[in-house]
Amino acid sequence: MSARVDERIAILPLTADAFAPFGEVLEIAGPPDFAFNAGMAQRWAARALPEVTGEGGRVAISLARAEPYRLPLQLDLVERHPLGSQAFMPLSAEPFLVVVAADEGGRPGRPRAFLTNGAQGVNYRRNVWHGVLTPLDRPQDFLIVDRTGPGDNLQEHHFARPWLICTDDA
Amino acid sequence: MSARVDERIAILPLTADAFAPFGEVLEIAGPPDFAFNAGMAQRWAARALPEVTGEGGRVAISLARAEPYRLPLQLDLVERHPLGSQAFMPLSAEPFLVVVAADEGGRPGRPRAFLTNGAQGVNYRRNVWHGVLTPLDRPQDFLIVDRTGPGDNLQEHHFARPWLICTDDA
Repeated sequence: MSARVDERIAILPLTADAFAPFGEVLEIAGPPDFAFNAGMAQRWAARALPEVTGEGGRVAISLARAEPYRLPLQLDLVERHPLGSQAFMPLSAEPFLVVVAADEGGRPGRPRAFLTNGAQGVNYRRNVWHGVLTPLDRPQDFLIVDRTGPGDNLQEHHFARPWLICTDDA
Repeated sequence: MSARVDERIAILPLTADAFAPFGEVLEIAGPPDFAFNAGMAQRWAARALPEVTGEGGRVAISLARAEPYRLPLQLDLVERHPLGSQAFMPLSAEPFLVVVAADEGGRPGRPRAFLTNGAQGVNYRRNVWHGVLTPLDRPQDFLIVDRTGPGDNLQEHHFARPWLICTDDA
């Protein structure tokens, strides 16, 4: 299937402001909140507060290794987690692609696509539609902070027609 | 003050087994627990479960930038957090020093020192005595998962005589 022009989603740089409707950007940016360890360390504090709901749910720290994708990317699927937020922090200084969509009556609206700057992670708030973990060009490792526990914590939405995620000049 | 031979603490490689009394090693090691994202990613799942107690406490995700130390290191201080666990994951592939001590009647016993392999983080369990964040040779950034909220969550112990943390050949 070839993508029509109106199915193209341009990738924008990830910024805290642009991402605010969907969650938090995890990055060392701006002045630190406080020093600790007798001034030997600075903290950008509590930039995201993991949210976990549902009986038996707990915050968990996991690790992941993800295979890369290539641009332009055909986006067929987004997902969301009704029982908890989900944070991804890259463990190597490489950008990755972040796709989110506002909810429109229980379905995802038009997706938005962001490219991290290589030092940024993201925290998707609970129930925010988002794409899969999407490194570009090479495999990438991540720390994940999300929910573990019983319950159905995954909703997937398959688009009837895929979107084409691309750089402006793709 | 010069250190006596019996005050020397030799640095050992960090392993999950050796660290088990104190917390969890956060690393991609051994077989993954499951695949996700249609097989494009593997997860080493729930390797640590952050613990938060005390009224108004929440798990928080923070970032930190820490100045480096040099070996041999004079260890004057350890600390612990009675209201929550504390995880540190390095965002660059450089080793850092991990110092912990078993509790002996409310005071830290003889410290133990470990060097990470560059891809490891740690989660200190609640109330485990540990040293400050200790990169070596150059500044290092970390993701931190620990407690935010009201309450007195810091106990420090100053050693009457410092320990000398050193490599075997130092």
